[in-house]
Amino acid sequence: MLEPHIWPDTARDIDGNLELGGCLVRDLVRTYGTPLYILDRATVAATAQAYQAALAAHYPAPAQIHYASKALLNTGVARLMHHLGLGLDCVSLGEVAVARRAGVDASHIHLHGNAKPSAELRQALAWGVGRIVVDNLDELHALGQLTVGQASPSPIWLRLNPGVDVHTHAHIQTGQLDSKFGLPIDTGMARAALELAQATPGIEVVGLHAHLGSQLSDAQAMRRGVARLMEFAAQMRQELGIVFTEFSPGGGLAVAYRAADPLLDIAHYVAALCDELQQQCQRWDYPLPRLVLEPGRSMIARAVVGVYEVVSIKQIEGVRTYVAVDGGMGDNIRPALYQAHYTVRRADASPPGATLPVTIAGRYCESGDILARDVALPPLLPGALLAFAQAGAYTLSMASNYNLVPRPALVLVENGGSRLLQRRETLDDLVARDVEEDDLHTRAAPETQATI
Amino acid sequence: MLEPHIWPDTARDIDGNLELGGCLVRDLVRTYGTPLYILDRATVAATAQAYQAALAAHYPAPAQIHYASKALLNTGVARLMHHLGLGLDCVSLGEVAVARRAGVDASHIHLHGNAKPSAELRQALAWGVGRIVVDNLDELHALGQLTVGQASPSPIWLRLNPGVDVHTHAHIQTGQLDSKFGLPIDTGMARAALELAQATPGIEVVGLHAHLGSQLSDAQAMRRGVARLMEFAAQMRQELGIVFTEFSPGGGLAVAYRAADPLLDIAHYVAALCDELQQQCQRWDYPLPRLVLEPGRSMIARAVVGVYEVVSIKQIEGVRTYVAVDGGMGDNIRPALYQAHYTVRRADASPPGATLPVTIAGRYCESGDILARDVALPPLLPGALLAFAQAGAYTLSMASNYNLVPRPALVLVENGGSRLLQRRETLDDLVARDVEEDDLHTRAAPETQATI
Repeated sequence: MLEPHIWPDTARDIDGNLELGGCLVRDLVRTYGTPLYILDRATVAATAQAYQAALAAHYPAPAQIHYASKALLNTGVARLMHHLGLGLDCVSLGEVAVARRAGVDASHIHLHGNAKPSAELRQALAWGVGRIVVDNLDELHALGQLTVGQASPSPIWLRLNPGVDVHTHAHIQTGQLDSKFGLPIDTGMARAALELAQATPGIEVVGLHAHLGSQLSDAQAMRRGVARLMEFAAQMRQELGIVFTEFSPGGGLAVAYRAADPLLDIAHYVAALCDELQQQCQRWDYPLPRLVLEPGRSMIARAVVGVYEVVSIKQIEGVRTYVAVDGGMGDNIRPALYQAHYTVRRADASPPGATLPVTIAGRYCESGDILARDVALPPLLPGALLAFAQAGAYTLSMASNYNLVPRPALVLVENGGSRLLQRRETLDDLVARDVEEDDLHTRAAPETQATI
Repeated sequence: MLEPHIWPDTARDIDGNLELGGCLVRDLVRTYGTPLYILDRATVAATAQAYQAALAAHYPAPAQIHYASKALLNTGVARLMHHLGLGLDCVSLGEVAVARRAGVDASHIHLHGNAKPSAELRQALAWGVGRIVVDNLDELHALGQLTVGQASPSPIWLRLNPGVDVHTHAHIQTGQLDSKFGLPIDTGMARAALELAQATPGIEVVGLHAHLGSQLSDAQAMRRGVARLMEFAAQMRQELGIVFTEFSPGGGLAVAYRAADPLLDIAHYVAALCDELQQQCQRWDYPLPRLVLEPGRSMIARAVVGVYEVVSIKQIEGVRTYVAVDGGMGDNIRPALYQAHYTVRRADASPPGATLPVTIAGRYCESGDILARDVALPPLLPGALLAFAQAGAYTLSMASNYNLVPRPALVLVENGGSRLLQRRETLDDLVARDVEEDDLHTRAAPETQATI
């Protein structure tokens, strides 16, 4: 019943009670409350190991895994990824600051983003971020100004738009020509960026990057993206004399939210990418670049389970049974935003009885706050606990205070022990930024305070 | 150019510079940074006055406006609504706590919600919240237990599901039978709830409530909802001997995000509701109840303008021009979540030149983070300021720290002066809940701390 590609590696069913990392969920809930997000350290470690082993097996030149922080980041998660030997991909100064706070050296951090404000670029340069991945010509101009007089050029990558369509949700598809991301190869903008970079003393383009999208399960589309980038690289070597020594096809490997979802496992995905990259390098007689993979969702989603308590059950005769829980779109907006589906099971022991199809509604005052439709669950009463699998990516990272509901706690479990990574928000936290009448005329804090 | 039903009452164009509440937006940005949300106090006051005057003109019995806090709430907004004579509708203990902190007496607060956790109900009762609006039978059972031994019964309302379909986005449509909200009249559940309430000494049902949905511009649908509720009320008086003395058709009046959007103005909306309620009371020979209207979006949306700074411009030949700004789905998820549209204009003076259609992309690392498509704007360079109208409702209230970007500041403007209502988040705020290794084994804070 606990599908291994959907639930964490340590998930076990103990007489109907869900156990994670050696801890019973019902005991964790007693300690930490609900909604609760539970991170199984063993699953993260095994996933990192799977990526690293696949790279070692399939790529004969230097290679590195960078965790795409936007999936889920806080100090504890950054520290964990760093401890497992991963670099960090960040998309804002906030993510960089948290990574540094966790002890990650700035040189192991790459900074992405389609709209990096100048103040963030300036701070990233001052901190010595490993690579800035440049998205557009305006960013190149800004970097040119910010690096005037620098002793040695800052190494950067260019994010390219390869013009490759893949089949995924339009919100998370990024490789097609009509995209806000990257420098299009087809229109000549990518080449223009290289020429501009060559004329800019403060920067040096050392690598190329592209990202085809999210929830990709089609190795052929990824191969086409790699081929397009290497074709461009070979052309630029010939035309501009530039040899790129680093290469990243981004991340985007799919995870299975439900048993029947299409899936490509990490070993096959890495093998296909490495194979394609080597084939293309052979084709163009290009030296194998250092390869950087940037998994986010596939690193963290399956390691985390979300747990809610049932608040009420409403059986509308002839229509539907709604089971309302104490969380919803405030902690997990994916069902409302992407029409995402989840595998759900009861986390504490059920009374005997046949399973019935129910719709799980969130507590937020909005009809769209439905967490899962038509899932089969055993008989439920208020107080029952429900577990959502694959809850690690794009849930807490997108959490809001909608309805002024405090955001949940995130707890790490391992070998029967647990500890908080991020405490539950309190009502006091909700008003921490509210300005009292006494504080009238207070000036705003400077834009890019970065004391952490 | 500044359509009065879209922009705040005080919005003016001063040689191409947008002025709000007597303050130039470009000056506010210099003080408070971007992204910035600017609240025009005069517009909120005029809107409250429009609702109150319409009620006074069209309803001959007691009536009251309650602001639906979920649209936007913080201490300053709660204090403002209270000062304007409005009660507050809340949907969580967090909203109630903020309202109390702003000096609102609990008796002027109503508590809604389809899944109120027991701990929140207990605290709401202890604080003496004016009305608890009961959504379901489990909540009635919980209230029965929580009010055992109480000296006098707590006055409650029942939220009914009238089974009336209206035409709006499925996410925000709430009156149809297949809904997570309310007690269906048609299946007999509403009547069952009344019988259960009659048998519960700690509570007394004094009113009926329904909410048909959001962005409603069809007075006929609202009239049908009112008619259905009063028919039920008349039937219950006959069958169970209950006379309801309070009545609320909720909120949901539409606002115009773009010039051509269908619109029903406040006076006509209130007049239609009051007329229908009086007709129905006459029909059933029912005493006119106290009427409570619950506007959220229509109270606050138009009073607020959101301002971004342009970071980069990417012209993809033959495809589209992307203008990337320093905010996006983290502060305003409505375009991504509801395919919402906005009216956008430049907020600082433009160089001369013809307007061109552009797509405004947010800074968040996601293709779906597009704030507005194909809007006509004058020539832009990085550093230009863009203003989004109707930005007060369901923007900041749903804001997240996605990509670990700090949430924006909210500033109030009036008569040429400005003051912060909510300060911009800092990088330190982003890690306030992160637990350091020294704090291992720290217990989570109790679920419903309410010291504010």
